[in-house]
Amino acid sequence: MPTTEPQPLSTELSSTLELAVELIRRPSVTPDDLDCQELMIERLERLGFTIERLPFGDVKNFWATHGHHGPVLAFAGHTDVVPSGPEAQWHTPPFEPEIDAQGMLRGRGAADMKGSLAAMVTAVERFITAHPEHDGRIAFLITSDEEGPAIDGTRAVVEHFRERNERLDYCIVGEPSSTERLGDVIKNGRRGSLGGVLRVRGIQGHVAYPHLARNPIHQIAPALDALATEHWDSGNDSFPGTSFQISNIRSGTGATNVIPGEVEAIFNFRFSTETTEKELRERTEAILRDHDLDYDISWTLNGEPFLTREGSLVEAAILGVEEITGERPVLSTSGGTSDGRFIATLGSQVVELGPRNATIHQVNECVRAADLDALSSIYEAILKQLFVAQRTR
Amino acid sequence: MPTTEPQPLSTELSSTLELAVELIRRPSVTPDDLDCQELMIERLERLGFTIERLPFGDVKNFWATHGHHGPVLAFAGHTDVVPSGPEAQWHTPPFEPEIDAQGMLRGRGAADMKGSLAAMVTAVERFITAHPEHDGRIAFLITSDEEGPAIDGTRAVVEHFRERNERLDYCIVGEPSSTERLGDVIKNGRRGSLGGVLRVRGIQGHVAYPHLARNPIHQIAPALDALATEHWDSGNDSFPGTSFQISNIRSGTGATNVIPGEVEAIFNFRFSTETTEKELRERTEAILRDHDLDYDISWTLNGEPFLTREGSLVEAAILGVEEITGERPVLSTSGGTSDGRFIATLGSQVVELGPRNATIHQVNECVRAADLDALSSIYEAILKQLFVAQRTR
Ligand SMILES: [Zn+2]
Ligand SMILES: [Zn+2]
Repeated sequence: MPTTEPQPLSTELSSTLELAVELIRRPSVTPDDLDCQELMIERLERLGFTIERLPFGDVKNFWATHGHHGPVLAFAGHTDVVPSGPEAQWHTPPFEPEIDAQGMLRGRGAADMKGSLAAMVTAVERFITAHPEHDGRIAFLITSDEEGPAIDGTRAVVEHFRERNERLDYCIVGEPSSTERLGDVIKNGRRGSLGGVLRVRGIQGHVAYPHLARNPIHQIAPALDALATEHWDSGNDSFPGTSFQISNIRSGTGATNVIPGEVEAIFNFRFSTETTEKELRERTEAILRDHDLDYDISWTLNGEPFLTREGSLVEAAILGVEEITGERPVLSTSGGTSDGRFIATLGSQVVELGPRNATIHQVNECVRAADLDALSSIYEAILKQLFVAQRTR
Repeated sequence: MPTTEPQPLSTELSSTLELAVELIRRPSVTPDDLDCQELMIERLERLGFTIERLPFGDVKNFWATHGHHGPVLAFAGHTDVVPSGPEAQWHTPPFEPEIDAQGMLRGRGAADMKGSLAAMVTAVERFITAHPEHDGRIAFLITSDEEGPAIDGTRAVVEHFRERNERLDYCIVGEPSSTERLGDVIKNGRRGSLGGVLRVRGIQGHVAYPHLARNPIHQIAPALDALATEHWDSGNDSFPGTSFQISNIRSGTGATNVIPGEVEAIFNFRFSTETTEKELRERTEAILRDHDLDYDISWTLNGEPFLTREGSLVEAAILGVEEITGERPVLSTSGGTSDGRFIATLGSQVVELGPRNATIHQVNECVRAADLDALSSIYEAILKQLFVAQRTR
């Protein structure tokens, strides 16, 4: 009789699901790792990996390598999760993972991205057992701060690697890239992200004496309209056009009879490789100058756009997905940023490939349990594509 | 030797200044009256006034009349004051009135409008003593809530008067109308005030997926620009053109990667007699509809415009000022609202005539002490113009 009651976790779980469950049980909200990384490290050491722990501040990171020659393929990911949100809205407690009657593994981090971490570890376990003398080197680059400030996590490790010329040819980030079905989308790049905080100064006054004041809301309105309707670029084959969005605007004290002295607007560009941070800044300021504003603006570059063109890694990823799912994935650069933006600055080929992202960062986050087993097989197939010489590539 | 040290209040103060000081000593912040009105009532009863206390809610009001026939001239004003603001910024404590070496009476309410109240009382004292059998009737309409919600104050008294058909031909409101010199400006009307709270709904989303969202800030910007640049009317001989000002705008949670679901803008019209509340509402909504917004708007009519054309009261006020100051005042309808807007609905002729308004509602509020004595003389001169038959009018 089918039931929606969660079934108790049996001892018949696959090795991937078992590890995923163990990881989800640890409420490792950013930047806490709660020994998730030690769980992974224990498994990797048993396989002969060399482990290097790279903590920065209160963030835990580790780098693990196996093999001694040739190109390096790193699996990258994060052990931290976003907060559970209101627990009362969860059907099952967020940090007590269960597999329900529909075969969904439920819990915070199931999809983003403890399921992927488990799939990476078991894929590597099977691969190394079958191919102890594989070509190339297999690596892990794991952080406990991807969901937070993301400063002392992958970014800091990458800077460290840049200094010591660490080689990193290929990187598979376990972010949940799939939309409708497992493996339907591989992310082979991301748009850049450029943020700005714009302050326009007017002259405060009383609404009854507008000639003695200068209303900054009146002044910013046409400028914001011009920015919002500007055609920044048309994108290209790999990227959608650059988009501009205002996320916040704020002015006034609440008093209804006072013309405020200042207005603040916060905006964000997601930009393609058809433009640059510098060009966007210049074009924005030109529009603001056209509107004759007394303004200042503070910019934050959250990430340059990056693109991994078709090549060994993309090809291996596509073939790996096809082999396991029978369907050809599409390449995409849409969506939010990930740690791939930092890794790509090392010149690495980077793809993101993970489970479906429908429930990430929401209450009742879940992932099809069978998808994690299939994802592990995909990762294993990619390893074979890249590091087993006798296979057709 | 001149000094800026405040001099101790001597016993040589004029009757007007003495009463002003007594009133300012009471920190009667809206809606508190702290027996300011009883101080006035005591003086008026001694003159033979009939007193009617008209409290509404926690607001104290009184109506006092003297004389039994003919037109009614009421002095109108308020005993409440706005809060002192940061006391540390006051050179002298706000509720310990002093007259400094420059002859300025300092204290909260000195200009708005306890000085005027004192001047009214002493003007009437002198006038009635000299003309016990004056023409017409002299009245006082005093409230303790002009600076606050202004609902249970003059407005409530006026509604009460409307019901009982109380006669009120002329009204002198003691609001500080003067700008550069005492009596340089008489207000003979005020623009209307119409407020609106506009909410525009979009669809919340992530800045990385703008096609799944609808940004209400992007939508409202051109509409606000259209409202801010609209020519509402050109005013007329008595009124400047209608003005529109946005006082507040607010949208976004502070998160920089979220497209907000709603934006709220608060605005205010100050409008001339060339338009109406209804027309402004209709034109505003037509502009919003043109911009295809999903919006709602809530309106508050703070006051209809009113105008007292040249006639007995305006003429008497001009002559009264000229007699005392030697300079002819100008008529104006500019500036904020006052209780005159309520009184005018009774069909009364209404003017506002009081001291300089340079420091009102600010720290270190002050008024030239000699101006209060002169103001009392102006009020007395107006009484003579209107109510002493033998004078040339
Ligand atoms: Zn993630
Ligand atoms: Zn006032």
